[in-house]
Amino acid sequence: MNASIAKTGTKTVSGADADRRARLKRLRAELTARGLDGFIVPRADEHQGEYVAGRSERLAWLTGFTGSAGLAVVLKNKAAVFVDGRYTLQVRAQVDTAQFDCLPIATHMPWDWIAGAMSKGGRIGYDPWLLTPAQAARYEAACKKAGGKLVPVPGNLVDAVWADQPPPPRAPAQVHPNKYAGRTSADKRREIAVALKSAGEDAAVLSAPDSICWLLNVRGADVPRTPFVLSFAVVHRTGAVDWCVDADKITAAVRRHIGKEVRLHAPGTLGDVLDRLGQGGKRVRIDPAGIPMWVMARLKRAGADISRAADPCQLPKAKKTRAEQAGMRSAHKRDGAAVCRFLAWLAAEAPQGGITELAASDRLLACREATGKLRDLSFDTISGSGPNGAIVHYKSTPETNRTLKPGDIYLVDSGGQYLDGTTDITRTVAITIKGKKGPTREMQDRFTRVLKGHIALAMAKFPPGTTGSALDPLARKSLWDAGLDYDHGTGHGVGSYLSVHEGPQRISKAASTVALEPGMVVSNEPGYYKTGEYGIRIENLVMVGAAETPRGGERDMLGFETLTLAPIDRALIDTPMLDTDERAWLDAYHARVWRELNRAVDARTRAWLKSATKPL
Amino acid sequence: MNASIAKTGTKTVSGADADRRARLKRLRAELTARGLDGFIVPRADEHQGEYVAGRSERLAWLTGFTGSAGLAVVLKNKAAVFVDGRYTLQVRAQVDTAQFDCLPIATHMPWDWIAGAMSKGGRIGYDPWLLTPAQAARYEAACKKAGGKLVPVPGNLVDAVWADQPPPPRAPAQVHPNKYAGRTSADKRREIAVALKSAGEDAAVLSAPDSICWLLNVRGADVPRTPFVLSFAVVHRTGAVDWCVDADKITAAVRRHIGKEVRLHAPGTLGDVLDRLGQGGKRVRIDPAGIPMWVMARLKRAGADISRAADPCQLPKAKKTRAEQAGMRSAHKRDGAAVCRFLAWLAAEAPQGGITELAASDRLLACREATGKLRDLSFDTISGSGPNGAIVHYKSTPETNRTLKPGDIYLVDSGGQYLDGTTDITRTVAITIKGKKGPTREMQDRFTRVLKGHIALAMAKFPPGTTGSALDPLARKSLWDAGLDYDHGTGHGVGSYLSVHEGPQRISKAASTVALEPGMVVSNEPGYYKTGEYGIRIENLVMVGAAETPRGGERDMLGFETLTLAPIDRALIDTPMLDTDERAWLDAYHARVWRELNRAVDARTRAWLKSATKPL
Repeated sequence: MNASIAKTGTKTVSGADADRRARLKRLRAELTARGLDGFIVPRADEHQGEYVAGRSERLAWLTGFTGSAGLAVVLKNKAAVFVDGRYTLQVRAQVDTAQFDCLPIATHMPWDWIAGAMSKGGRIGYDPWLLTPAQAARYEAACKKAGGKLVPVPGNLVDAVWADQPPPPRAPAQVHPNKYAGRTSADKRREIAVALKSAGEDAAVLSAPDSICWLLNVRGADVPRTPFVLSFAVVHRTGAVDWCVDADKITAAVRRHIGKEVRLHAPGTLGDVLDRLGQGGKRVRIDPAGIPMWVMARLKRAGADISRAADPCQLPKAKKTRAEQAGMRSAHKRDGAAVCRFLAWLAAEAPQGGITELAASDRLLACREATGKLRDLSFDTISGSGPNGAIVHYKSTPETNRTLKPGDIYLVDSGGQYLDGTTDITRTVAITIKGKKGPTREMQDRFTRVLKGHIALAMAKFPPGTTGSALDPLARKSLWDAGLDYDHGTGHGVGSYLSVHEGPQRISKAASTVALEPGMVVSNEPGYYKTGEYGIRIENLVMVGAAETPRGGERDMLGFETLTLAPIDRALIDTPMLDTDERAWLDAYHARVWRELNRAVDARTRAWLKSATKPL
Repeated sequence: MNASIAKTGTKTVSGADADRRARLKRLRAELTARGLDGFIVPRADEHQGEYVAGRSERLAWLTGFTGSAGLAVVLKNKAAVFVDGRYTLQVRAQVDTAQFDCLPIATHMPWDWIAGAMSKGGRIGYDPWLLTPAQAARYEAACKKAGGKLVPVPGNLVDAVWADQPPPPRAPAQVHPNKYAGRTSADKRREIAVALKSAGEDAAVLSAPDSICWLLNVRGADVPRTPFVLSFAVVHRTGAVDWCVDADKITAAVRRHIGKEVRLHAPGTLGDVLDRLGQGGKRVRIDPAGIPMWVMARLKRAGADISRAADPCQLPKAKKTRAEQAGMRSAHKRDGAAVCRFLAWLAAEAPQGGITELAASDRLLACREATGKLRDLSFDTISGSGPNGAIVHYKSTPETNRTLKPGDIYLVDSGGQYLDGTTDITRTVAITIKGKKGPTREMQDRFTRVLKGHIALAMAKFPPGTTGSALDPLARKSLWDAGLDYDHGTGHGVGSYLSVHEGPQRISKAASTVALEPGMVVSNEPGYYKTGEYGIRIENLVMVGAAETPRGGERDMLGFETLTLAPIDRALIDTPMLDTDERAWLDAYHARVWRELNRAVDARTRAWLKSATKPL
């Protein structure tokens, strides 16, 4: 958080603020020029991704807010930025609050705000590439109710006033070899073709980069942290694909790899591809939660018969092939060794003082880079000590950077992108000086409750058909029993050298109808956060597979294989709180970590690992 | 099961079968007379209730099948009865399989069967009073796909050929006094009026008898086991109600009680009431999962603006008032004492031999009747010993009636209707001769696992907003761990001197978005069933309320208060399988059962109770 802003309360117009005021002024002039009364500026790009290219950082350019989710609405005489609970502090530090109201989206829906602020007959513009049909419908209803109108605008208004906007990314695509993917693109396309046929559909439009990269077995580098090739595609019931992608990204190797069934088109010609579907009277599947409104409108105009259903690649992609499963195991072993090198260093250095959050995350990055296989981190490392650990999506900056101190709890959530798999691990460790300064009894109680939840999920056996929402309470029970809880999901899907967050499965309180199936990878990450004091999270990735049938068992059961390998800090465990089974699980897990990693680490790390993986 | 049918395989046309063949023939003649090619005969009545009046037993009259759910389709040259998994055996024993195919609905959807069997241009009739819009839509789509048509038929075809069909029930309604209801009808109607207003609706049509009885604070006796007044009602945004109910049911006392805001109409004039709504261009809420198709069609024809949403009474009804909560406690104490008298008798008599399932359920009924307060059972008692206990919805008949034998497990699921509350309890007991013949180790293992699930749910603490589907796995975990499960829900809502099965909350694997709220009553009834050997179920009713905040707890939590009072059979518990908390729960529960009931039972029962509630 920017200290000067926090201190003064009233803000002086800084250089950056003056810049942004000018930008806002130019945007409002553009509003007038186009006969609009307002414009919606989401953080999302055309693909609704978590990481976006520089040119899509319109929200940050306009408002200064750099969070990974949010939205601004600019009217002629007022403007607001809407963010979720993670960003309520950050938004006030980054945004000029004289220009923008900063509102929590949980209680202030932007469509309601617009409806309340717009005048009768008002026209609110939006970029139909950036809102999904599901989102646009909400704004449309609200504008209508307020006696106004929601208007799709050709050409984004921010782009019109952003002189030095970066060009679209053009990173070369790469073939994702079969030894990692485990299935050819042709085979995947056949599966999707069968699904479309049985649903009575002729084609599906894909806008999710992970779906397209999975389907074509390609990877790219268009956005940070995630090896995406930004593009659009239409997959037909024949198995053929029309791929609208910048030709600069397509190397000769990729062209050979994709074969004749995948026809290349310039990105600007997606409309023509859609028009042909419409003119042929085709039934076309779109995912109303992911596709741009622009695509749906174009299809409708062209006369297509629209089928609203889930992106057909999401479920098959979530069920990892044998090769992907093996790759995930290798990637986690490699990544686990790197994390252990980091943790051993931390255990030696942090108690002496002088290690900051940023220094720690730099060191962790260096340990991963030293594997020689790291392609990128899988997300920005969360490196939070003491009170910063209680901020669930904390990102350390020079302004917030804390030095780790004995008595602190330090939470580090990080992951790597490797060709054979994507990792995501959180460890929470006590910074201790032996016999002098250690964690409090309360910290141990909370950590042990989180651990009991983690173990309950790791050990769970459940029948086929069970959804993640049905398993969620197992991870929370030990906290609920003490009148505690955490305000985030327990598990998200993870891609295979793709996005660290993927669906359709998840483990959370929200009702889900997607069953956990063999080969799916999810995180197991219960936590506990005490605002202003400390945060705890224990996260391993786990993979769904057949569980051993116990003697006398009558039904096939599924269970989780833990992929992540790194010790869980014994100093934070209140051992008597664990029952026999929980203790046996932890000891067996630690024995496995030792067995799988001790020969993969240096002598100093090995010595630390020996002690860190001792039985309780 | 009818032994002769089971033995012979081919059936002789019995007297009943010959009767039914004549009925089927008359129905087919009626089909021809009306220019139809088929007719749908559901078990449901106009109110989609579980118990129906005699005149609505069309399915049983036509086919012989007496289960509580099912449906027949009669075409000119073939016919079928569709039932769920509970009734696959029963249907073949009761129905003349030369006339009707007997099909499991899980794999044979009746609409698909119709589509496959009907010829192009075919017309399938249905009674629009007996299908909901949601159901009719499925048949309509299937008929259309097969090139035919679904046709609503005025006047049920079965009624046309059923000479001695009973008349509609006309049991007098009774005032449900405020001391039991805890809220006046006027107060409830105000709440519904506010809900309609805030949803922008003018009125809601009610067809669920429990909604109408709750709203008007009346009870009746039109169907077995449930004190319903069968009727329809329209509740307006003013709080006024149009009640279409047989005048014979309305005593002077009820007329005085309901007051002027409730206008009485003859049942046959519902159409006029709906027409007035339509002519006034009113926005009218209907619940598409419960209302008859007839009502929706009439409203549409009259020009009403239809809003599809849940019956507005269901959620408020589920949250019991303080008076209803107190009533539930009293009813459960009274009912628990009766059950204890029965269990004490059973423990003394059954090991001697000669007690049959029917004798046992008769005795249980007598114990409840001896309270002097029993209005009716709340459902047909399930009294199953040995292999019969494994049939989840078993109903003992002279043909299936088994004598309880030492070494058996006996399962009895029963409940009572009292003015102050409705009960539902299942106990599973071992028929033992001390030191000689007792339950097997496997039975004890399974019983203890079911008990652990029951206790986990009884002890659960959970945050506001938690749904029943999120709690369901707590009740199954101990079975899942052993590769076991049960194929029914864990908990259903229970009315207050109303239906023993009510929504909208439930505890089950099916995804639910309805949160458990204080005052809701649900059953806690995990089980285990070994086909052909034995069945286990442990069921108490529990009520949602605030849970005590533990020391250091940060959030308000909810929990369950167990209402049901009767010992859980210690002979079936493998004590070492229980952990300290589980054991403490059971001992505390038994101590409470003793404390609350010992002065309410006779000396013989008291002696038994003393021993049955000893600490483990």
